[in-house]
Amino acid sequence: MTSTGLLPEGLRDRLPPQAEAASRLLHRVIVAIGRNGYARVAPPIAEYEDELVGRLKRTRARDLFRLIDPVSQRTLAFRPDITAQLGRIAATRMAHRPRPLRLGYGGPVLKLRASQLRPQRELIQAGAELIGSDSVAAASEVLGVAIEALEVAGVTGLTIDLTLPDLVEALAAGPLPLPPGRIEAVQAALDAKDAGGLGPLGAEAYLPLIEAAGPLEAALARLRALPFADVLASRLDGVEAIGRAFAGRAALTLDPTERHGFEYQSWLGFSLFAEGLAGEVGRGGTYAIHRADGQEEPAVGFSLYLDPLVDAGLGQEARRHVFVPHGSDPVAAAALRTAGWTTLAALSPDDAAPKGCTHILRDGAPFPIEG
Amino acid sequence: MTSTGLLPEGLRDRLPPQAEAASRLLHRVIVAIGRNGYARVAPPIAEYEDELVGRLKRTRARDLFRLIDPVSQRTLAFRPDITAQLGRIAATRMAHRPRPLRLGYGGPVLKLRASQLRPQRELIQAGAELIGSDSVAAASEVLGVAIEALEVAGVTGLTIDLTLPDLVEALAAGPLPLPPGRIEAVQAALDAKDAGGLGPLGAEAYLPLIEAAGPLEAALARLRALPFADVLASRLDGVEAIGRAFAGRAALTLDPTERHGFEYQSWLGFSLFAEGLAGEVGRGGTYAIHRADGQEEPAVGFSLYLDPLVDAGLGQEARRHVFVPHGSDPVAAAALRTAGWTTLAALSPDDAAPKGCTHILRDGAPFPIEG
Repeated sequence: MTSTGLLPEGLRDRLPPQAEAASRLLHRVIVAIGRNGYARVAPPIAEYEDELVGRLKRTRARDLFRLIDPVSQRTLAFRPDITAQLGRIAATRMAHRPRPLRLGYGGPVLKLRASQLRPQRELIQAGAELIGSDSVAAASEVLGVAIEALEVAGVTGLTIDLTLPDLVEALAAGPLPLPPGRIEAVQAALDAKDAGGLGPLGAEAYLPLIEAAGPLEAALARLRALPFADVLASRLDGVEAIGRAFAGRAALTLDPTERHGFEYQSWLGFSLFAEGLAGEVGRGGTYAIHRADGQEEPAVGFSLYLDPLVDAGLGQEARRHVFVPHGSDPVAAAALRTAGWTTLAALSPDDAAPKGCTHILRDGAPFPIEG
Repeated sequence: MTSTGLLPEGLRDRLPPQAEAASRLLHRVIVAIGRNGYARVAPPIAEYEDELVGRLKRTRARDLFRLIDPVSQRTLAFRPDITAQLGRIAATRMAHRPRPLRLGYGGPVLKLRASQLRPQRELIQAGAELIGSDSVAAASEVLGVAIEALEVAGVTGLTIDLTLPDLVEALAAGPLPLPPGRIEAVQAALDAKDAGGLGPLGAEAYLPLIEAAGPLEAALARLRALPFADVLASRLDGVEAIGRAFAGRAALTLDPTERHGFEYQSWLGFSLFAEGLAGEVGRGGTYAIHRADGQEEPAVGFSLYLDPLVDAGLGQEARRHVFVPHGSDPVAAAALRTAGWTTLAALSPDDAAPKGCTHILRDGAPFPIEG
């Protein structure tokens, strides 16, 4: 067969040095998550479509890679997201474990279609979920783990965009009543910053929420000055506490009505951005897990996408390459590897040191190659 | 939705501590491979079926997870093996790189159907390919990297079963002629150790090859005593050199006519087994890569399967867990993580140390918890 070597759109080979960087970054991130007490779980790449779709927050079956499994005669789907699988594990196999249950994960996910923002269909996702609480302390912890993991991966210049996903529902049930059928339209108008759209919905009172968006401190001041601020007090106090916790490590903004992608979050959502990295590098928030007994359980978590880090050149490390001439003592070469050297062995007495080798193994030790 | 949490046959969740062990073992193995000069590449999980099947040694299209890609309107297949993808990369995108080209890889692969020996359909595969040579030196290097990677992963009691996959072809073309149409039947009879099947094929002269199988030294002695040994000399010398190189690190056997799974290997094939691990933990050998210009290029490589190691409990490490009371200095907790501790933070002033914490953070340092 003569191969053209072409790959489908949105699927790619990672070559050196990016492939190694991707592997190194994933390892660093999952180790950082693990050291915060989040025990690693590794769900399969594919599972029954109905189980997966039932727990996916924003994905419909037609957005998934799907196929009929000849073994079970049922439809399998490839995961577009690992969070939903962690929800399944927490709700079923680990339902009896004490709470808070802290779980971490990392691995490939697949999107059937790429987006303009993310042209790749196979992505590396890593993250953590804290199950059993959605308190300010729990959210702060989770956000702190996300930041630490990104910092360990070499990310700098972080911005955290906070949002209050269930804000409109809370206000509609209280001081700014809306007919239930209109809540979604108001949320959509606010999300689109469509001030003019609020009037026809009878929702002019919501306009100050659009105008409040901005750097966290200023946004909080504007929201606290609103006539219905007392209804928002617990949310604003929570967001303010998060702001205090991370003020030195990231720029913080608050857009109280940003909803896109946070439709299923409860009181808090966040997006993470970083200088020099394309698009969002992470997101998360508080939510509820559906347990097998029909109860809901509060939770908070985050997902990081590592491909923007790899694409920006993070995770690459200079290696020291030493040439091992033919007939060298293999034990000496192994000792150099243990000490962190990369060895490149000759396959015949005539082989010269390949390009990139700065040293040669001689008398059991690496000597600089002249030239 | 109420989830049952059931997974399809052959797909599983890895839970703590196995999930972390799997991740740690993969990391150790790919680092060990990398330090031997094998540069990491990371092909996608899925690609065009025809590209993949054209390069797969032993897999047919019906053995793959396949689906129609709505973007390209072509059939995609999920890789059952990463070796074939490395062949594609070496033959196309890295065709211009100097030889020997050393490439390493590690990641998930998917089999449409499980086997009795391997009941899982998602497996972790890692390995290395040396492209540009299939010499004894190249094969020895590759086998040495495989052994080092397994040793780094904690595997002990290794056995290397060597085989000579193209032996019958070589003999049939020389001292023990066979009609071309009968070579395959003779190979099958030898592979099945079916001595009685050789007579009807007019291949009694091949019988001593079955009887030669056994521990390497004895097998070599028996083969060297055969009347047609001179035709085999280069193969036997090669296998003997490999035996010398690894005598201290593994038990070696030679079954010259073992063919199953080595149908596309050239002069050398090997399987790796280890005490306490179910089934084969690795395999490899010499082969040819089909380049885009129609030429063939010699190569040698190995694949390791890490799931048997995880299942046997390898890769698990005791972690030191320290409880971080509410209100502790986050910088002190971060310093403990940097020092290798796993921290578990209280979410409220009332939280007690979770089970498993042996220490508590107090005055910036970990103190043993009494109890």
